[in-house]
Amino acid sequence: MDRFKFYSPTYFVFGKDEENNTAKYVQRFGGSKVLIHYGGGSAIRSGLIDRVKASLENASIPYVLLGGVKPNPRSGLVYEGIELCRKENIDFVLAVGGGSTIDSAKAIAAGAVYDGDFWDYYQGKPVKEALPIGTILTIAAAGSEGSGDSVITKEEGMLKRSASGDALRPAFSILNPALTQTLPLYQTACGITDIMAHLFERYFTNTKEVEVTDRLIEGLLLSMIHEAKRVIKDPENYEVRANIMWAGMISHNNSCGVGREQDWASHDIEHELSAMYDCAHGAGLAVVFPAWMTYVMEHDVNRFAQLAVRVWGCQMDFANPANTAKEGIQCLKDFLRSIGMPSNFAELGAKEEDIAQMAKTACWGNGGTGTVGRFVPLKEEDVANIYRLML
Amino acid sequence: MDRFKFYSPTYFVFGKDEENNTAKYVQRFGGSKVLIHYGGGSAIRSGLIDRVKASLENASIPYVLLGGVKPNPRSGLVYEGIELCRKENIDFVLAVGGGSTIDSAKAIAAGAVYDGDFWDYYQGKPVKEALPIGTILTIAAAGSEGSGDSVITKEEGMLKRSASGDALRPAFSILNPALTQTLPLYQTACGITDIMAHLFERYFTNTKEVEVTDRLIEGLLLSMIHEAKRVIKDPENYEVRANIMWAGMISHNNSCGVGREQDWASHDIEHELSAMYDCAHGAGLAVVFPAWMTYVMEHDVNRFAQLAVRVWGCQMDFANPANTAKEGIQCLKDFLRSIGMPSNFAELGAKEEDIAQMAKTACWGNGGTGTVGRFVPLKEEDVANIYRLML
Repeated sequence: MDRFKFYSPTYFVFGKDEENNTAKYVQRFGGSKVLIHYGGGSAIRSGLIDRVKASLENASIPYVLLGGVKPNPRSGLVYEGIELCRKENIDFVLAVGGGSTIDSAKAIAAGAVYDGDFWDYYQGKPVKEALPIGTILTIAAAGSEGSGDSVITKEEGMLKRSASGDALRPAFSILNPALTQTLPLYQTACGITDIMAHLFERYFTNTKEVEVTDRLIEGLLLSMIHEAKRVIKDPENYEVRANIMWAGMISHNNSCGVGREQDWASHDIEHELSAMYDCAHGAGLAVVFPAWMTYVMEHDVNRFAQLAVRVWGCQMDFANPANTAKEGIQCLKDFLRSIGMPSNFAELGAKEEDIAQMAKTACWGNGGTGTVGRFVPLKEEDVANIYRLML
Repeated sequence: MDRFKFYSPTYFVFGKDEENNTAKYVQRFGGSKVLIHYGGGSAIRSGLIDRVKASLENASIPYVLLGGVKPNPRSGLVYEGIELCRKENIDFVLAVGGGSTIDSAKAIAAGAVYDGDFWDYYQGKPVKEALPIGTILTIAAAGSEGSGDSVITKEEGMLKRSASGDALRPAFSILNPALTQTLPLYQTACGITDIMAHLFERYFTNTKEVEVTDRLIEGLLLSMIHEAKRVIKDPENYEVRANIMWAGMISHNNSCGVGREQDWASHDIEHELSAMYDCAHGAGLAVVFPAWMTYVMEHDVNRFAQLAVRVWGCQMDFANPANTAKEGIQCLKDFLRSIGMPSNFAELGAKEEDIAQMAKTACWGNGGTGTVGRFVPLKEEDVANIYRLML
């Protein structure tokens, strides 16, 4: 087990109708003028934005609205938000939406109190200061409501990059599972895939002796597999949505990833796909992960066999553990297919002729060092091979 | 799943030698004059207190020492600490030790800024204000390094009671597994039992649809069983100690207990034993839990069978799940025996003739409402019956 620091100071408020208490939490964390940042469409149609506005108005907290966040959020709107915060003397950024909205809000909160270009943070500068951030989550997926990370795409060159820092951890996050009950099944399945991907990225490690975090990850995967099957049959079941929502947070606030080297190659490989074809992040991960697993399996067959036995319920082939490892990967493929996820380039709208460029950008783009991932550091050629396994 | 709030803002610093950086964290959380609170004996002999003092001295942070905390910490020393803090204008309380020392430090930190008697907090008043607290953990067990709880025994009547509040959550906790490598096996096993007990108290619930937290608890129990067997064979193994130490924190900061009714009858039943006979808390729990499980099993046989199958690896008896449930309880008994824990009153030094008094105090003492526990609310007679199962 490696040394680590773990800091997850977010105040989580979980339950029905809690968005009506938004003002209370904004005040608790020192907000006196709020930027309400959101995507559009459903948050307005459902009346959610109106309920949040009413809560602030009842407490006489002034606010400014900035909507329009798109999936794979862009730097253009971030620059706009930063300017708005400065002009309006905003001291609290409230994200109402899913991971994209929260990530965009984090970028604005950091950029608003930084003299330079906010993109510096997405080129590796740690974020040490930001306006306090609150979130009202509407999609269980990215885990951004409990993490100190943000992913933004820069239009120029379609670079999708991440920033990190404790200052990006939300001051509070309101998790009301009822807000996700009407989410379409495809987006729900993308979210579940994203949650499982956050666990896989942590699970595949070269760090030895990490039994506690292994077991936590396996437990979360088991529960996600169970709840995924249920949500498809009964999408409006509050209890199922509640389990998925809490799992999304705990899978990514790093309580089960501490003290171990983590991989994250698959996220880098996927980011090229969603940046280039604007596919859903979860859908991209569904295609990438089985290919990545197949490509790197030989590096640590026993770890893959452990996952197969403990999570997928495979029988261990003691004579040939590689068989068990492969069976586990097949179980993942079957599972992803069963919840409606794509399994290849064609279904994502991705093109074979872009492989060389994507492999290059993944490894070398924007300050890249030539490899992605830590479990097996992958070179440009490896990444291209993995993309080819997705054809 | 029930509504909840979850707030665990402690900054955890995990790794070898981190106690040498104590001053850095005291400063980060605003301390300018420190009370170093500790037990005695080993913390001094090992040189740990000297290393902490050196760290503070190098940063020119003045400190005052208060040692002498005993297991099942007493109110007398708390009053002394409160007076010392006021006299010396202390603004930061640093606990160097295990759960007893941390709990005593929390009581001092709360009492020092409270006009009334600190014991009010141990009679149910929520703690909303306290001096900031830091901890340097030397025993993996109580989980107090990450919790907002404290348990103190009042000498008058030997009342062992708890206080709670977010203000009691440590600002930082330093977890150096190497500090626990020399802990005797008996204390190590008591700690493991305590950690598992914190999980059982959360596992046995009447709340439905808590799959995610069920799986997290089961994962932690599986890892504790695994590590317990290893630590007995190889007590100085840093990696094993590291896994146990992180599990101790995560088992009790409530990340796996949110959204579900929790029981805590066994802790109440045990508190009478350790208050009266001054036995180790973990040893008391080892005797109480199998008896409690046997007594309440019929209330939800399937939940006990789930634990037996998922954690103890029992085969499900589909024709008669009660058989599986009982087999699981027997596995727990065998396990506790295998790590050297006591299994009955005699081994604890407890006496049959005290049963009636202990059952009465558990249920009615110090503001009690006549029952303990929530999974099955137990009356005085039930508690007496459970004590009798331990004879």
